[in-house]
Amino acid sequence: MTTESHDVSAVHDIEILGLNPTVNKHATFKPTAVSKKDKENWARLDNCKKGCELKNDFDDVKPTTLTERGALFESARCLKCADAPCQKGCPTQLDIKTFISSISNKNYYGAAKAIFSDNPLGLTCGMVCPVSTLCQLGCNLAASEEGAINIGGLQQFATETFKKMNIPQIRDPSLTPLDQLPDTYRVKIALVGCGPTSISCATFLARLGYTDVTIFEKEQFLGGLSSAEIPQYRLNYEVVEFEIKLMKDLGVKIEYGKRLGENGFSVESLKQQGYTAIYLGIGMPEPKIDDVFKGLTSAQGFYTSKEFLPQVSKASKAGMCGCKSKLPELNGKVIVLGAGDTAFDCATSAFRCGAARVTVCFRRGFSDMRAVPEEVDIAKDERCEFLPYVLPKQVIMREGKLVAVEFYKTEKGPDGNYAIDEDQFFRVKCDYIISAFGSQIGSVADSCKPLTFNKWGTADIDPMTMQAKTCEWLFCGGDLVGNGTTVEAVNDGKTASWNIHKYLQGLEGIPIPDTPQLPNFYTPIDLVDISVEMAGLRFPNPFGLASATPCTSAAMIRRSFEQGWGFAVTKTFSLDKDLVTNVSPRIVRGTTSGNHYGPGQGAFLNIELISEKTCHYWCKAITELKRDFPDRIVIASIMCGFNKQDWTDLAKMAQASGADAIELNLSCPHGMGEKGMGLACGQDTELVLHICKWLKEAVTIPFFAKLTPNVTEVKDIAKAAYDGGATGVTAINTVSGLMGLKGDSNAWPAIGQEKKTTYGGVSGNAVRPMALRAVSSIRRELPEFPIMATGGADSADATIQFLHCGASVVQICSSVQNQDFTVVEDYIIGLKTYLYMQSRQDLLAWDGQSPPAVHQENSKFKGLPKFGKYQKERIKIQVEENKTKDLLKVTNPLPPPAVAGKVPSVQDQINRAIPRIGRHDDLRRDQQVVALIDEDMCINCGKCYMTCNDSGYQAITFDKHTHFAHVTDLCTGCTLCASVCPIIDCITMVPRDSVYIPDRGLVPSATSAQC
Amino acid sequence: MTTESHDVSAVHDIEILGLNPTVNKHATFKPTAVSKKDKENWARLDNCKKGCELKNDFDDVKPTTLTERGALFESARCLKCADAPCQKGCPTQLDIKTFISSISNKNYYGAAKAIFSDNPLGLTCGMVCPVSTLCQLGCNLAASEEGAINIGGLQQFATETFKKMNIPQIRDPSLTPLDQLPDTYRVKIALVGCGPTSISCATFLARLGYTDVTIFEKEQFLGGLSSAEIPQYRLNYEVVEFEIKLMKDLGVKIEYGKRLGENGFSVESLKQQGYTAIYLGIGMPEPKIDDVFKGLTSAQGFYTSKEFLPQVSKASKAGMCGCKSKLPELNGKVIVLGAGDTAFDCATSAFRCGAARVTVCFRRGFSDMRAVPEEVDIAKDERCEFLPYVLPKQVIMREGKLVAVEFYKTEKGPDGNYAIDEDQFFRVKCDYIISAFGSQIGSVADSCKPLTFNKWGTADIDPMTMQAKTCEWLFCGGDLVGNGTTVEAVNDGKTASWNIHKYLQGLEGIPIPDTPQLPNFYTPIDLVDISVEMAGLRFPNPFGLASATPCTSAAMIRRSFEQGWGFAVTKTFSLDKDLVTNVSPRIVRGTTSGNHYGPGQGAFLNIELISEKTCHYWCKAITELKRDFPDRIVIASIMCGFNKQDWTDLAKMAQASGADAIELNLSCPHGMGEKGMGLACGQDTELVLHICKWLKEAVTIPFFAKLTPNVTEVKDIAKAAYDGGATGVTAINTVSGLMGLKGDSNAWPAIGQEKKTTYGGVSGNAVRPMALRAVSSIRRELPEFPIMATGGADSADATIQFLHCGASVVQICSSVQNQDFTVVEDYIIGLKTYLYMQSRQDLLAWDGQSPPAVHQENSKFKGLPKFGKYQKERIKIQVEENKTKDLLKVTNPLPPPAVAGKVPSVQDQINRAIPRIGRHDDLRRDQQVVALIDEDMCINCGKCYMTCNDSGYQAITFDKHTHFAHVTDLCTGCTLCASVCPIIDCITMVPRDSVYIPDRGLVPSATSAQC
Repeated sequence: MTTESHDVSAVHDIEILGLNPTVNKHATFKPTAVSKKDKENWARLDNCKKGCELKNDFDDVKPTTLTERGALFESARCLKCADAPCQKGCPTQLDIKTFISSISNKNYYGAAKAIFSDNPLGLTCGMVCPVSTLCQLGCNLAASEEGAINIGGLQQFATETFKKMNIPQIRDPSLTPLDQLPDTYRVKIALVGCGPTSISCATFLARLGYTDVTIFEKEQFLGGLSSAEIPQYRLNYEVVEFEIKLMKDLGVKIEYGKRLGENGFSVESLKQQGYTAIYLGIGMPEPKIDDVFKGLTSAQGFYTSKEFLPQVSKASKAGMCGCKSKLPELNGKVIVLGAGDTAFDCATSAFRCGAARVTVCFRRGFSDMRAVPEEVDIAKDERCEFLPYVLPKQVIMREGKLVAVEFYKTEKGPDGNYAIDEDQFFRVKCDYIISAFGSQIGSVADSCKPLTFNKWGTADIDPMTMQAKTCEWLFCGGDLVGNGTTVEAVNDGKTASWNIHKYLQGLEGIPIPDTPQLPNFYTPIDLVDISVEMAGLRFPNPFGLASATPCTSAAMIRRSFEQGWGFAVTKTFSLDKDLVTNVSPRIVRGTTSGNHYGPGQGAFLNIELISEKTCHYWCKAITELKRDFPDRIVIASIMCGFNKQDWTDLAKMAQASGADAIELNLSCPHGMGEKGMGLACGQDTELVLHICKWLKEAVTIPFFAKLTPNVTEVKDIAKAAYDGGATGVTAINTVSGLMGLKGDSNAWPAIGQEKKTTYGGVSGNAVRPMALRAVSSIRRELPEFPIMATGGADSADATIQFLHCGASVVQICSSVQNQDFTVVEDYIIGLKTYLYMQSRQDLLAWDGQSPPAVHQENSKFKGLPKFGKYQKERIKIQVEENKTKDLLKVTNPLPPPAVAGKVPSVQDQINRAIPRIGRHDDLRRDQQVVALIDEDMCINCGKCYMTCNDSGYQAITFDKHTHFAHVTDLCTGCTLCASVCPIIDCITMVPRDSVYIPDRGLVPSATSAQC
Repeated sequence: MTTESHDVSAVHDIEILGLNPTVNKHATFKPTAVSKKDKENWARLDNCKKGCELKNDFDDVKPTTLTERGALFESARCLKCADAPCQKGCPTQLDIKTFISSISNKNYYGAAKAIFSDNPLGLTCGMVCPVSTLCQLGCNLAASEEGAINIGGLQQFATETFKKMNIPQIRDPSLTPLDQLPDTYRVKIALVGCGPTSISCATFLARLGYTDVTIFEKEQFLGGLSSAEIPQYRLNYEVVEFEIKLMKDLGVKIEYGKRLGENGFSVESLKQQGYTAIYLGIGMPEPKIDDVFKGLTSAQGFYTSKEFLPQVSKASKAGMCGCKSKLPELNGKVIVLGAGDTAFDCATSAFRCGAARVTVCFRRGFSDMRAVPEEVDIAKDERCEFLPYVLPKQVIMREGKLVAVEFYKTEKGPDGNYAIDEDQFFRVKCDYIISAFGSQIGSVADSCKPLTFNKWGTADIDPMTMQAKTCEWLFCGGDLVGNGTTVEAVNDGKTASWNIHKYLQGLEGIPIPDTPQLPNFYTPIDLVDISVEMAGLRFPNPFGLASATPCTSAAMIRRSFEQGWGFAVTKTFSLDKDLVTNVSPRIVRGTTSGNHYGPGQGAFLNIELISEKTCHYWCKAITELKRDFPDRIVIASIMCGFNKQDWTDLAKMAQASGADAIELNLSCPHGMGEKGMGLACGQDTELVLHICKWLKEAVTIPFFAKLTPNVTEVKDIAKAAYDGGATGVTAINTVSGLMGLKGDSNAWPAIGQEKKTTYGGVSGNAVRPMALRAVSSIRRELPEFPIMATGGADSADATIQFLHCGASVVQICSSVQNQDFTVVEDYIIGLKTYLYMQSRQDLLAWDGQSPPAVHQENSKFKGLPKFGKYQKERIKIQVEENKTKDLLKVTNPLPPPAVAGKVPSVQDQINRAIPRIGRHDDLRRDQQVVALIDEDMCINCGKCYMTCNDSGYQAITFDKHTHFAHVTDLCTGCTLCASVCPIIDCITMVPRDSVYIPDRGLVPSATSAQC
């Protein structure tokens, strides 16, 4: 193709396209020897997979940790199953699908509330739970190749985001206030050991209303094993501190340095001090040590996990204690004994203490290790070594220091048991041994009396109540009863709390319910009032069911009210003479979000008609619903042809039934129009005007015209309704469309053997941009006219947008079709959170519940992408920095209590956006923007480069080595790059600092306009 | 809440809702002991994780294998990066993002074509490649928490789907036909060994045009290691057979039972038989055996991998050979020696031969194993054991049978090398040993002369050409040169093919290009003509760029034509007096597919104006483009106010530039309307009529009115254009909307410091239902009026739908914004495939390129879900069945060659759907459907149950134990269940076998209609 240099279409205009894809005319050609070498330039290795230096590196290692993008992606994947097995797998029976639903709606407080309601250590558990053996084990998506949801990561994300909000816990405001509770709530309760199980138990006791709850902790720091033994890179100390603060918000007291056992107190002495009930959550305080190691010391190179891990924690967890400890120095070969979870914490910690090599040695085979895969995999990725089938025989010392361990060989017998072959042994060199053979109650047992212990060495309790078998005022949980994971310990505390409550109230004969009623998690957010008034009607909240499939029957509306919906519009009913019969199929999946299957496709199309039920049925239903739910708003949706008598009769009937209001269906886009009903009326301003006038004559209750978007200007129709005397409008009904065709050219839905179809109504997110436009344009035309919005309201977030555009309440259908009625709880909490956050100056920079992005101006990794040799360079910089890092410097202290101002009302939100929506001509051409790329967030995909080149201005270059994109002076600020960038906030649009001069191609003639 | 029994809203109507979610008023309560036990009921275990019986189980074990749902999900996740690192990591430099793009567009042939073009063993490699060390190692998504794309699985999916299509390979039809090639293409070429490297080499030679290519294979079966040593459960024999068939389609000959070496032929004897070039792809034929095992036999319990794996293959690969072998019986404890990939194939095969326990024993540590993680993980999941740090010292025999191995202990030194500690040894009991210490050339080396071998025992070659260092007519690749993976062997064959070509042509002095030009993969599909005529214009294909961002400059249109686009509509230009200047930001991401970030969101909104460039620029550009691309159609898009002179002047200027046609922009929804242009003209039938009349007077070339959907009836506007004399219309321009607001109530885009906005145009998939409706409604109104469709055409699949609705060509913008101009290649191939498939009776049941679902009527697992005790029951049934299974019974033979009829043209597709689109009243109420759930496909999520209950008819029950959903007689066929089901085709709508009688709630009055 020849192009002359003065051609305006010459390709040299776009010569920066060197890396932009072209269609391949031939197969590629590269010898294997070259590509073998080349791939190293592009490798993205997990930081430690290739034996890097971990000394002093206590950064998070959890592969489950999620950014907001990751959390939104993962939560959108969740199916929100009916009887979700994830919940059944969780010891605390956490309502996982509910919190995931909230995350996917960007309602992070809603998610955190669901989590902390069932698990006061929800953030800790999100970080440390062995989810592969708990919640994720049952995930229905594990039956698809997509695999189970990253539940732990989502739990961590939601609760960490809530942590950033800095909001205190309060007691359920619907419960009897503390000062009105009987004295039985003021007895002294002691909990021993401030670890997860006690924190959980104390939290639930405080939620129930107990006001004199004290935790006794032997150390000068809190958190138990979470602090002392779980390493910082799996569970940082800030998290422990934060969850304890939430507990303390409820008034739980803590006494430090109070030790159970010799030189301390005993259970009986506590009881004598007047504690009416006692909970033991002390774990197993002493290490089990093999006789082989008796008498060995750390100076000689021997540690137990019970010594080693707390030493590491004290030296690496900023803020945990003031001891200014140093890390143990393990320069050399380390052997870790045992293959439980603790062994792997020791192994990975050993690397951070300088170990050159770490070998985990254990009695069983690899596939019989006790540790969970999560822990083993982290160690494996760090190139920890494994030596199965061995049992220590003796240690070999030289000059008072360990130099080797001699092991017996074990072998697995046909019965599955492991036998020691005493004739076979060998030595393995080492400089240090860390024994992680588990722990035991040891000498503390005596101080636990009257508690007794069973043959496995765990406390003798009733596992259904956590009550000691020998003593009714004593309860235990966690490690002490053999429930070794944090989440089990949390649940033990939860279980015990109800049984302590039962015991304490029983002492005075005060009845409590048979079915436990443990209170949920609350904060000041839950106190926010979200009621709203419109057209003289008070809606308890602005969320209602649209006149659609969720209102197919009155019983369904009843169930929706039980779940918390503020109002419902009945499915549209007609006079009996206009009764309809549906065809099937008639409601089909959307195709507007690509080839996606399952819930959440973003759109539906339906050709369903109005209700098949009679008007008498519906009027009776309205009467019943108003009788049983007087605080909810029930709106009758009606439809007739263009006939005054019909409209008058039906409207009067609806009013007589007790409906709060009437909605006139002037907009059903399919079927009804053919009968001169629905949109056949609603597309014509004259007809709308008349129908509204008839209604105005017929009834005294408010009535709303439901508008079709299938018109040239929806605001003109709204104006007609206004002129006709309608109280307000509903905008918008579904958008007329044809969802798609199959390969055989049959549309879906295809009816009958002939496979015929008709245009249907598109609903869901796909139509939200049209709905937001309709609502705001009506508002701009008619500043005071009440609007009910509908069309893609699927979250609090979307609802707020509708309010800002002028709606007072929203009607919802598609998102219920995708899920179920309980979604309203998420919407309610999300809206309350939004309003509450407006009252907090420190949260105003958040976008909804998303914290503002942090762009690092001068990253130490500047210019270094995260792959190949650049990644190695990054690691080198990090390793160098780690050498001198002050691990104990507190960088993120818990913030002081936040000050909240006045919380705005829902009413305050209505119309907020209107003043800034206007004409294109009013937009400032002298205030332009350009794109700015954050290299540190960039994942090098080059999507910005491609779209800028093939759909824009060739204003982004792309480095062929670093794969960093660079914005040039040609940028016109069009924003396509930011629109396709997969990383949230990686590309931001910033003010342009020069005057924007368009490229006219050729010089315009003198007459040209300057607009 | 009290409800009386005769209430119509009584909840007992919906008492099947027992498992439907409710909002939690309290925290849950369940003691740890109960939940611990309970979770077992819900566990979904990978089949073999808990020591199940694998004997005779040769079913696929690859965790990467994908269903269509999985493939669509995964391919949609791919970012299609600019300079995609995945491709760089592949030894064959496969254009991975291109094939993934095609999968995400449901163009599976397009994907397979891209794969086989670069890798003739693309299916094999999709199954066996160690992707974690190749393509996936560089995936940019590995830098996000989503993780790398499952590239191997996608490759397998696309090529397997193509395999089902049963389409032969042909030679690139654009190359010189075989009978016109010089004699240098008819020399005899021999390839030795019919494994991957020879198959690849022979394929490329045949594609280049060599007609006398023969492969000599020593066995009676083909495939080399793929058949003999890679187990059936990783690579089934059908796949090998299929890829060899593709090679044979090109005329490559095969001779069986021809062995290199003693008792066979030699390289030199072949040369003497007249073979001008020889390629050795014989692998390493002999095992390396440690001296410790010399003389041991399988009767004693000793195998090498070279004996063992072929025995297993012969006994488990149906169709491979007629030998009717039996599996080796390994009942007892098996030790596998070595830790390379082969060792793990031996280990997992041993389980299938009855081994009770398998231990892989190796010299190095766990983290230094040579095997790739993919292989190790499969073994680990099957509870294979590992014994690191050992080296065999001697075997212990009893009564002529192995009973144990004695091992030396090894230790890793500070230098990273492993030393044997000869003083330390121990025994491990075993009944069988499989030695997998690698392979070597052995005695065959002599027969390879003049080939020489280097000190590592591999062939002495030039790795850039694969040519023997000692002999210019001899080439080698694969294992023989030390490139051990299949994909490297394939690439060696590919590399060699070009160098053999160079050598052979060089012999006669015929020049070949410096840059290799290896031909791509072709089939009869690629011969299909997709040109189409409209309004007297011949379009080479129906894919064009819409007047939008991809046509910002003429240089961009030039680049688009170079990539294959059939036509382009310029960005709209005006007279100089109407020149515009844009604001920024102005193009924003869609929100219609949920909280999704990155490309492929399904929608954009823009407030961009028409071109900022002058009309002179554009007219010059059109002239240049037509000069350089005379076969492409260039359409000038113009806009004026309602002024006859302006329209006349601009149209004449456009015609004079050489434009093939003119498009009148009567529809831009933002900005221009305020000036009385764009949609301000296009919403009024009178204005449209007049403007078209003016154009009709002004120009002789065809002109099209581009219509706005923002009108009550788009077909009325089309009718006005028709009446005004327009040649045709373009439907639809963008839909006016407001994409969304941020938390601070500012819309996005927000312009300037005041953050003002205006309504913009929504484009992309979100508007496709409206576009399909507009196109088909215009067609129904005006049966012969040419239509260019636009609005969500993002694939061949979507394009075909537009054709069926009446369009002749489609215009595309949003999907280029999401990706780049090369997408057109995918669309072209996809459309050709669609047309080709119509010519094949055996493919008519496919939906596009998706094969029909197979519903198992009487599954042996009926009633058993795939979790908990039911899953265990399933495994039991399978294990029982395996015991007597005839592994060698061929169940899926390669089908006979397919017969294709006449391939329809694009023209044939236009309007196909129109006769079946009509009025709701015309739909059959007497032919209804009901839902049918396939339990075998069900993943037990209960989405169908939830939506039926809260949005429908309470016609689905949900078993609380099995989590199977059951459709009751109440089903009305609404189809919501199928619409939200995440599994494709799990719920189908089948004809109802009784009369449908609607539930009227209360008896209608006598006057009721019967419609």
